[in-house]
Amino acid sequence: MDRPAARRTPTTSSPRRAAWAGRLRAPPVFFGALAILAAAVLGTPRAAASPILPAPAIEMPADGSFHLDAQSVIAAPAGDGQALASARYLADLVARTRGLKLKVVEGEPPAEVAAIVLRRGRRLGEAYLLDVTPRAIVIQSSGDAGLFYGAVSAWQLAASPAGKGAVDIPGLHVEDAPRFAWRGLMLDSARNFQSPAFVEAFIDRMARAKLNVLQWHLADDQGWRLEIRKYPRLTQVGAWRVPAGPAAAADIDRKTGQPRRIGGFYTQDQVRQIVAYAAQRHVTIVPEIEMPGHAQAAIAAYPDLGSAPRPPAGASSDWGVHPYLYNVDEKTFGFLEDVLTEVMELFPSRYIHIGGDEAVKVQWKADPAVQARMRELWIGDEDALQGWFIGRIGTFLAAHGRRLVGWDEILLGGVAPGATVMSWRGLDGAIIAAKLGHDTVAAPQPIYYFDNRQGAGPDEPPGRGRLVGLKDVYDFEPVPAILTPLERPHVLGVQAQLWSEHIRTEDRVSRAAFPRALAVAETGWSPAARKDWAGFTGRLDAELGRERALGETYGTWPEPPPPAIGLARSRASQQLTLCTAKIALNLEDDAPVAGPRARFLVDIMNPCWIWPAADLAGVTRIEAAVGQLPFNFQIGDDIKKVILRPPASPAGELEVRQDRCDGPVIASLSLAPALKSQAVTRLRGPLAPTPPGLHDLCFTFTQGGVDPLWVIDRVSLAPPVEEARRGR
Amino acid sequence: MDRPAARRTPTTSSPRRAAWAGRLRAPPVFFGALAILAAAVLGTPRAAASPILPAPAIEMPADGSFHLDAQSVIAAPAGDGQALASARYLADLVARTRGLKLKVVEGEPPAEVAAIVLRRGRRLGEAYLLDVTPRAIVIQSSGDAGLFYGAVSAWQLAASPAGKGAVDIPGLHVEDAPRFAWRGLMLDSARNFQSPAFVEAFIDRMARAKLNVLQWHLADDQGWRLEIRKYPRLTQVGAWRVPAGPAAAADIDRKTGQPRRIGGFYTQDQVRQIVAYAAQRHVTIVPEIEMPGHAQAAIAAYPDLGSAPRPPAGASSDWGVHPYLYNVDEKTFGFLEDVLTEVMELFPSRYIHIGGDEAVKVQWKADPAVQARMRELWIGDEDALQGWFIGRIGTFLAAHGRRLVGWDEILLGGVAPGATVMSWRGLDGAIIAAKLGHDTVAAPQPIYYFDNRQGAGPDEPPGRGRLVGLKDVYDFEPVPAILTPLERPHVLGVQAQLWSEHIRTEDRVSRAAFPRALAVAETGWSPAARKDWAGFTGRLDAELGRERALGETYGTWPEPPPPAIGLARSRASQQLTLCTAKIALNLEDDAPVAGPRARFLVDIMNPCWIWPAADLAGVTRIEAAVGQLPFNFQIGDDIKKVILRPPASPAGELEVRQDRCDGPVIASLSLAPALKSQAVTRLRGPLAPTPPGLHDLCFTFTQGGVDPLWVIDRVSLAPPVEEARRGR
Repeated sequence: MDRPAARRTPTTSSPRRAAWAGRLRAPPVFFGALAILAAAVLGTPRAAASPILPAPAIEMPADGSFHLDAQSVIAAPAGDGQALASARYLADLVARTRGLKLKVVEGEPPAEVAAIVLRRGRRLGEAYLLDVTPRAIVIQSSGDAGLFYGAVSAWQLAASPAGKGAVDIPGLHVEDAPRFAWRGLMLDSARNFQSPAFVEAFIDRMARAKLNVLQWHLADDQGWRLEIRKYPRLTQVGAWRVPAGPAAAADIDRKTGQPRRIGGFYTQDQVRQIVAYAAQRHVTIVPEIEMPGHAQAAIAAYPDLGSAPRPPAGASSDWGVHPYLYNVDEKTFGFLEDVLTEVMELFPSRYIHIGGDEAVKVQWKADPAVQARMRELWIGDEDALQGWFIGRIGTFLAAHGRRLVGWDEILLGGVAPGATVMSWRGLDGAIIAAKLGHDTVAAPQPIYYFDNRQGAGPDEPPGRGRLVGLKDVYDFEPVPAILTPLERPHVLGVQAQLWSEHIRTEDRVSRAAFPRALAVAETGWSPAARKDWAGFTGRLDAELGRERALGETYGTWPEPPPPAIGLARSRASQQLTLCTAKIALNLEDDAPVAGPRARFLVDIMNPCWIWPAADLAGVTRIEAAVGQLPFNFQIGDDIKKVILRPPASPAGELEVRQDRCDGPVIASLSLAPALKSQAVTRLRGPLAPTPPGLHDLCFTFTQGGVDPLWVIDRVSLAPPVEEARRGR
Repeated sequence: MDRPAARRTPTTSSPRRAAWAGRLRAPPVFFGALAILAAAVLGTPRAAASPILPAPAIEMPADGSFHLDAQSVIAAPAGDGQALASARYLADLVARTRGLKLKVVEGEPPAEVAAIVLRRGRRLGEAYLLDVTPRAIVIQSSGDAGLFYGAVSAWQLAASPAGKGAVDIPGLHVEDAPRFAWRGLMLDSARNFQSPAFVEAFIDRMARAKLNVLQWHLADDQGWRLEIRKYPRLTQVGAWRVPAGPAAAADIDRKTGQPRRIGGFYTQDQVRQIVAYAAQRHVTIVPEIEMPGHAQAAIAAYPDLGSAPRPPAGASSDWGVHPYLYNVDEKTFGFLEDVLTEVMELFPSRYIHIGGDEAVKVQWKADPAVQARMRELWIGDEDALQGWFIGRIGTFLAAHGRRLVGWDEILLGGVAPGATVMSWRGLDGAIIAAKLGHDTVAAPQPIYYFDNRQGAGPDEPPGRGRLVGLKDVYDFEPVPAILTPLERPHVLGVQAQLWSEHIRTEDRVSRAAFPRALAVAETGWSPAARKDWAGFTGRLDAELGRERALGETYGTWPEPPPPAIGLARSRASQQLTLCTAKIALNLEDDAPVAGPRARFLVDIMNPCWIWPAADLAGVTRIEAAVGQLPFNFQIGDDIKKVILRPPASPAGELEVRQDRCDGPVIASLSLAPALKSQAVTRLRGPLAPTPPGLHDLCFTFTQGGVDPLWVIDRVSLAPPVEEARRGR
């Protein structure tokens, strides 16, 4: 039956015509299965890319276009709850982006009605077919997830280009299926807490990118975020802390008369709601309960769990690797099994993540009870004890039909039977795991650690100092070439991490995650041969338009050109060069407690900055805005390696040296004025005459101990009055 | 002081002039340290190679030559026992090869005496300097091993070219040190026993190639070869077996009235002597006691050690992977510790090898006591139990100052603290071990498994079917490219294995080991950049000449050109093509018990041979010499995969099919005559007419079970009478 002619002419509402198709139109005969296969394998002839992101496995332009307007309907099989849910999800997205409120109908719509039709069949699981024809957009999959992903792709077509009202969607044939089963993000809600509403919105964004695993980091030294009914002190004690530093200590809560605590936790009801919300979007939440390390918050709540003679006073306000480990008493395993039992009741995920990373064994080595147990069990060292510990937990999980997943340190003392290894220290863990016959997920730092900075500008949110741009993330290939064809399937997929030490606010989580998570999504979903940076960035424009239409935020993209600071007389710390980058961080000031705070790029092991080739002609004064931060970094014995320079006066100085960091001091500004302020303080002083020509300036602080960590905010040379007034 | 002029003119004994130097003579200024370094690193300009094998790290021609004759002496520092021992070792080798009986003197010889001088200093450990000048040959090292290796190199110079009497040795400067610390061979004395005299001669050959580790495989399913005083039944019972098959069963020992047993063991006195002999040659013997698998001989001796309800009757006469594992009772660990205590008393080696390979867990899974112990220890599966088992043994060894080394399966259930991993299943074990921070030795099959055939000819000794030629061995690089610079030092070195299932005689051990062990020696000793196949084969000629002079045997080299068998009317099994190569073996007949036996190339999983493109013009008859072997292969459930073809008559048939292995039968020869003989039987029969042209012939046997294993010895087409008479 022909479609009514009226549908074929543009309506008076001037629907936008998507520009992304038709650059290369293949003859109809080309669409044989063999040709499609050839195109997929050989990547040629290339069809113009649709705005679907991640790129579908196979897509081909088709004749005509589909006219979507307010009269269009979305149809799903009658009584098919999952298909109808995906139809409603699509309708909601179309309404929020195009402003078209489409009706969702059950059963096949009449032929004369322009419809987006969800049908069962033809593809399994997450795979789907999608055909855009003048008559209809048809999505086919026998899988609930496949229908959902088809609906997401249909929305991406409908919402591109961005704008309101009707739109003509060019003809298209899509055959799509994911490359990997595990396409994940990890959200650290332990270091900084995010609201349930934010977590749900985050899941929504994941689902729209066809990401399907949210690893939820719920317990760490700095916070225990999950209500456990049998152990209420975990959240009563473990979910709250006073931030580090005197500013927070001085911020008295009027109700308690004590310093204000930050934190929070998720009640079991909230968790059940979030898990259900995620399940509707085909996102599995893999809960993570850290053991045997990263356990300070839990041990603060229940000191008997620990292995140290003196239990911690509370959850930590420090970052880094803490020494507190669970002990190996039977009662402690009882506690862990109780906790995991409640966790398994809340989270239907087949995988349960037990952490396993960064467990330094100092306390176990010193604990006579641990040592006695090792002898009893004929276990030769503490790494092997951790292997036994994790193996025992893995056996417990397996007895309940679950599988253990852990960070790659679980390889060290003997990987637990059936355990999946999350490879974070590069891909070595993935290689070892796969070669030992274990499954693995590629989650390597630094590329997949999204607390690393995306950009080098002074306005970049706080984070680790290393630059990990979108292209770095996009170009990463997760399957190591050394794996054999039989070993490669052990790489289940990819996962990017949002560690939140330096990501204090929800908006910053969004900006750290996106757009980089979209590059992960494409790596996780699209066939390796389909990846193409230029094509991705083109589709990214459409994607970010859709996200803006939904009111979402993301990190700066495209990356701005680096500002021309060569001749500038004032530079922020991010515009200086770090002398070293041992532990480079882009840190936020701890003060003021409320309102905007300064950000400082600093190597905490060596606070030292260089202004290369400064033009000092006529410069007689120097002005420096400096901050002071609590040194709340647990770096073990490395604390002895922090470079300290002896002070000339009790307050210490900011020293400026000429040409080299051991060169002559040409300015020395006392820190005395800065001692009085927790926030940024301006210091001014004369600059000694220097020989003609350009000079490197080296900035360092003198002080007697690591705390406070003095940092450069901004330095200015002979600043004109108006520049000084304008501030940073 | 000038050297007497007489020394500079050729003597009347017409000393041979070595031809290996002087092709490129660098100017004297070239011999600065920097230039030597550059030559070593850049490999250019290339000096003509000396006949030292393995190639020294650095060697440079020098002016003049040293005249060695019966008046020359060998000098070592007075009272320096180790240096004098190396001097005497050199004197002995020179006497046996050149026939010159050189005097060994203590202290520096008078300047007018032509001497080979061993001096202390200048290099450490295994490294040495060697200078050949008209005045003297000077070897310098502060290390005992370095002096020894310098002496070996000096002998190699003195013995090249082969011949008796005086020789002029061209001037040379050598700076040498090994690339790897572990340069090993493994000798399997468990499957077939070698005499102490042979083991010592084998060690001698190793030492002359600067190989320094002999891993001695002393215990396996087929034999326990080491006297243990506390457990005499280990050798009383475990050191002897009746070989598989009816021929051996019918070979009655008159003394006992029972089938004759083969085997033997090393008394502790013999072992002490061999260890001392090896130590004098700077070869460390690393003893290997297999656990928890490959334990049938031990369990046959002491059934309480086992995990199966029915203990084995004796040491096995089968090959393959046997099911017998040690159990995990405390008494069994007591036994193992007792054994290892005696082992450590005998072998000063820092490393003790505990096997660890191929432990199938069928018995552990079925043993309630093992399962109860696993529950008690909270160990989740049998692989983890093996990890714990090995870890416990490792702890025991460490407490006695020794280090555990095991085959790469020790990685599976959690590698023991400090364990060294011998990577035999390719290099994966080396990669995993190094990345986990463990040491490793590259001992990969198939390249470093010297029971693989060296050549394809019918006269090649028995062995595995795979061809591993000298160049395959030489070209192997043991350090995986994926290792980082920090991980690479974990690769301690290389080791080739002489598994002896199919190497029944000592002469065959020699032929399987050499010359391939010389390629391993060069890989283990020489810098990677110095390796050069053409140069090696040139030096190999000299080396094999020296070995011949010492009366040693080695495998066929150079490899003979493949015989032109295209038109031959008769082919041995090795000249046919195997239909498949699942478990291809070049097997020796089990009969006759004494005297020469036939050898058959066969895939025991599918005994099936192809004569490709046979010219059948005028052929009306076919003759086949066939053998029958005991099917003494422990292949577990794979036994069900052995391809059996149904027989037409009770005796079974050799079937010849045309063109394909499921093609028409063109000859069917009854096996009835062959049933009567344990050795080779000739069968004859008519060949059905075939269409004109060439035809592939496929040879298979029909039979009801796997035993006996029928094999082709030789097939002949219309054999002329004289050919049939001449036999194979």
